[in-house]
Amino acid sequence: MKRVYLDNNATTKLDPIVKVKMQPFFEELYGNPNSLHQYGMEVRPYLNEAMGNMYDALNAPDPDDILITSCATESNNTVLKGIFFKHILANPTKNHIIATAVEHPSILETLHFLAQNGAEITYVDVDASGYVCAERIASAITDKTILISMMWANNETGMIFPIDEVAHIAQELGILFHTDAVQAIGKVKIDLSATPIDYLTFSAHKFHGPKGIGGLYVKKGKELPNLLHGGEQMGGYRAGTLNVAYIIGMGLAMKQSVGHLDKMNSDVRALRDRLEDALALIPDTIIVGDRAHRTANTILISLRGIEGEAMLWDLNRAGIAASTGSACASESLHANPVMSAIGEDPELAHTAIRLSLSRFTTSEEIDYAIEAFTHAVQRLRSISSTYAYTNEAE
Amino acid sequence: MKRVYLDNNATTKLDPIVKVKMQPFFEELYGNPNSLHQYGMEVRPYLNEAMGNMYDALNAPDPDDILITSCATESNNTVLKGIFFKHILANPTKNHIIATAVEHPSILETLHFLAQNGAEITYVDVDASGYVCAERIASAITDKTILISMMWANNETGMIFPIDEVAHIAQELGILFHTDAVQAIGKVKIDLSATPIDYLTFSAHKFHGPKGIGGLYVKKGKELPNLLHGGEQMGGYRAGTLNVAYIIGMGLAMKQSVGHLDKMNSDVRALRDRLEDALALIPDTIIVGDRAHRTANTILISLRGIEGEAMLWDLNRAGIAASTGSACASESLHANPVMSAIGEDPELAHTAIRLSLSRFTTSEEIDYAIEAFTHAVQRLRSISSTYAYTNEAE
Repeated sequence: MKRVYLDNNATTKLDPIVKVKMQPFFEELYGNPNSLHQYGMEVRPYLNEAMGNMYDALNAPDPDDILITSCATESNNTVLKGIFFKHILANPTKNHIIATAVEHPSILETLHFLAQNGAEITYVDVDASGYVCAERIASAITDKTILISMMWANNETGMIFPIDEVAHIAQELGILFHTDAVQAIGKVKIDLSATPIDYLTFSAHKFHGPKGIGGLYVKKGKELPNLLHGGEQMGGYRAGTLNVAYIIGMGLAMKQSVGHLDKMNSDVRALRDRLEDALALIPDTIIVGDRAHRTANTILISLRGIEGEAMLWDLNRAGIAASTGSACASESLHANPVMSAIGEDPELAHTAIRLSLSRFTTSEEIDYAIEAFTHAVQRLRSISSTYAYTNEAE
Repeated sequence: MKRVYLDNNATTKLDPIVKVKMQPFFEELYGNPNSLHQYGMEVRPYLNEAMGNMYDALNAPDPDDILITSCATESNNTVLKGIFFKHILANPTKNHIIATAVEHPSILETLHFLAQNGAEITYVDVDASGYVCAERIASAITDKTILISMMWANNETGMIFPIDEVAHIAQELGILFHTDAVQAIGKVKIDLSATPIDYLTFSAHKFHGPKGIGGLYVKKGKELPNLLHGGEQMGGYRAGTLNVAYIIGMGLAMKQSVGHLDKMNSDVRALRDRLEDALALIPDTIIVGDRAHRTANTILISLRGIEGEAMLWDLNRAGIAASTGSACASESLHANPVMSAIGEDPELAHTAIRLSLSRFTTSEEIDYAIEAFTHAVQRLRSISSTYAYTNEAE
């Protein structure tokens, strides 16, 4: 059966050259790099190369830190709980955090937890296009604000947020600024020497690296208490034996993805646009967000009269992998939180289907996806009492 | 050059069959198991098998949880910070934690951090053999005690602590009990259906699984706030996209290691004893701890007149990987914390060399290690002014 993977915002396939690069570290190069003997020392040059790849890809200044974590969720928890321990617990008059209402669950759930422990949170809604302008963030600032956390690109819609602008506002007011850039690496140009970001989160498996490794950029002088206390790995800021193979894999995967940024914004964008144009011809659909302001690989489409899960199953039977939203929330089958934030009615919020491409997606796959998607919509609407009723009423 | 790896308490080589088992998950089986499509669903049976391996290996009751973490450090931080948020921050009259003075840095550093935030800690010293009896722990209990955290086997000495006894004492008094079993898996019989343990930490790379994955057993009813908030992975108790390949690797590695428990306690023990007997013939040495109470793979030996680092380097030149102590602390070149706790004088504490075998260690490797170790001691003592002086003084 034909299979087409269009769920790259959930996870990506491993870049084949990354897989090859990691192999020796599952074999003879198994030393712990913190050991003082040859087994430990012989892996260090490879780790240094990987870290160099990441500094280069993000244009991160040398004195700043890139901490390796086990995932973006850990990076996000490190920032928010670090802020809690260092600032909020120590000085409750600076206990206010601003975030968008459409952050990843690893931000929203952590903020919910911190709110139970004394933090005050403002969630800034997106507009009907899924966007949040810098002014809306700025108007939420109070003299108690210690941190603004705003994702670079939204996982559901692909909408790209005004990070450079908000980072400068925060800098000017002496407010810490964090961005979850998980969906931005390899899709948006990131220059940490130009944009005044204090903390930046990333995750390898979103850019064709392995699952179970991520990172947190920390600007010099903005160090936080550890989420993981223990050994002196990562300059003492993130303990735990290093996942040597995956760090080396992540370094190469990031270099490759950022190296393919132009391809993402030309070839992949062209495929996405062709898919989107075809799907927009289906009646009674809404595609969320102006595509010029979205990451080049993402479409979020709502189909009146069709349950998102029913659509997913039809697509799955045709071999197409898509999503109703973040995989981190998909087991719960709640209404898509982004659609809710955008303000669509709950019925429509249940119909959002996300299609996300990668640089490995082919033109033939898109042809097939258009055909299968259109067919699934026809079939499901033909048996949908809601859709029939809506049409009769019009 | 001949190479002999005798640093298995720091990290171990990957079991070759574990490597083979993980391969498909770096290739076609790259789905996110939380996704609802085929790519996601097709990896789930493998994950279930891996989790089943771990429940079986630990004889963990079904209703209890095994959370997958990125390492033992994360597991230990999850327990201690979870206790802090759930119990200590909520009710400061129950703010007392008891631990041994020789816990891993991921316990000691976390406790140090929590002490700065309102927790009260008692560190119970080991005796001259590196042991802590249950009575010493019991005598530290106060009516403020909320948790006892005691490692199952010490990483430096291999000394096995009286976990069953202390667990029963804690249970009787309604005190929570945690054990860091990182050095115990595959070396000591663990039966979670018989020993009343609330939390148990393990790490794959100590038993021939991959580096960067670990686990935390949590007894039903003893759930703690997440260290990592976010998605609903791991029943909502540990967010973050699952490291599919490594979880599958860890499950098989644990099954294999626990399956080789008898071999560890016969063949590996015999090799260790032969090595130890030979090293004990070298004059002016101290081997820490009665070997009947140590894990079968470990020797900690102190050599008067020799700096530990000098010895490491000589061994390294001969192709032998050993350690002066925990790799988590080895970059810092502090005196070995266990030797300090044992009460040796600082000069002697600097000389501790740890040799740790695995079930992959061969008899030929032990022959070579005896020869190279003995030769290194002779060479270093021949140029040691301290050792010459000591001998003259006698």
